[in-house]
Amino acid sequence: MKALEERILKDGKVLPGHILQVGSFLNQQIDTDLILEMGREIARLYEGASVTKVLTIEASGIAIAFAAAQFLHCPVLLTRKHKAANISDEVYHTVIHSYTHGNDYTATLPKPYLDASDRVLIVDDFLANGAALRGLMDLVAQSGAEVVGCAIAIEKGFQGGGDALRAQGIRVESLALIESMSENALTFRP
Amino acid sequence: MKALEERILKDGKVLPGHILQVGSFLNQQIDTDLILEMGREIARLYEGASVTKVLTIEASGIAIAFAAAQFLHCPVLLTRKHKAANISDEVYHTVIHSYTHGNDYTATLPKPYLDASDRVLIVDDFLANGAALRGLMDLVAQSGAEVVGCAIAIEKGFQGGGDALRAQGIRVESLALIESMSENALTFRP
Repeated sequence: MKALEERILKDGKVLPGHILQVGSFLNQQIDTDLILEMGREIARLYEGASVTKVLTIEASGIAIAFAAAQFLHCPVLLTRKHKAANISDEVYHTVIHSYTHGNDYTATLPKPYLDASDRVLIVDDFLANGAALRGLMDLVAQSGAEVVGCAIAIEKGFQGGGDALRAQGIRVESLALIESMSENALTFRP
Repeated sequence: MKALEERILKDGKVLPGHILQVGSFLNQQIDTDLILEMGREIARLYEGASVTKVLTIEASGIAIAFAAAQFLHCPVLLTRKHKAANISDEVYHTVIHSYTHGNDYTATLPKPYLDASDRVLIVDDFLANGAALRGLMDLVAQSGAEVVGCAIAIEKGFQGGGDALRAQGIRVESLALIESMSENALTFRP
């Protein structure tokens, strides 16, 4: 998506360790108009896929998920992160490794919110190695629902997570797909 | 707001300890149409207040804040919660006590996102004793910006936090204001 790519070039900051800071417009100071445009584009991409629920994980992807859901006319489901291992029987749960923070966390979703009749679109702000997406797909699989695909704001293509998922036949749409990134240069996959 | 009050009566669950569960429509499975209607109502209430930023705290209030901001045509600012005390000089920060979890946390906001020219509307999903709102107001005060008011989805009126803020001259608008609540009965302030 041109508007997002241009905004990343203008306001994004590349830090050492393949970190792209986009807090000034995407996930801490949220540019409402840009996020709405992104939601509209995600809804256009998944038009006709009969999405019944948009699934995301707290907290950075919530605004994008909400914007997509408002144009897809369906609810948003919010997966919560827990450090503790004591998990009730009333939730789907899975352990996800965070490469950013170097630890594991447990993602949970109450069972009543997802069942085999659902068609789920997974939305998140970033895709790097794909660990979070795989965790969310595991939660959906536990419910018997179907994942129609994933929609990501920014994919770090050079980390390979997105292409590995695509190679497995999973639909992954990224609004901005970064091919390479350094403190001096950032290129997008055409 | 009639639609929210009716939804609370229909799908909310009162648990021991003055807990109102609204996860099925407000803050975990998010009813997009209802939240949009709430955002429209918040924008109507603060029309003419020249709001430049909507401020919330992760994570449950983000969708409501985004919906309000889209009708107020301004960005959302997301305050983050930290357990650690080592806070950089580049953020406004304040310590907030969580009565729900029985602990303190530090709320932070990067300094570049708020300054003395801003007029801030604080949005959150719940208001009980008012500790979170007071913390957010402290962050805004540090920046020199002005708080034009607060907009809350559900206020637990019987806990007094909202009325204490109103008595100080702070504008607090709650879309549903619960007067009393037990497992058998829930009444709203007219």
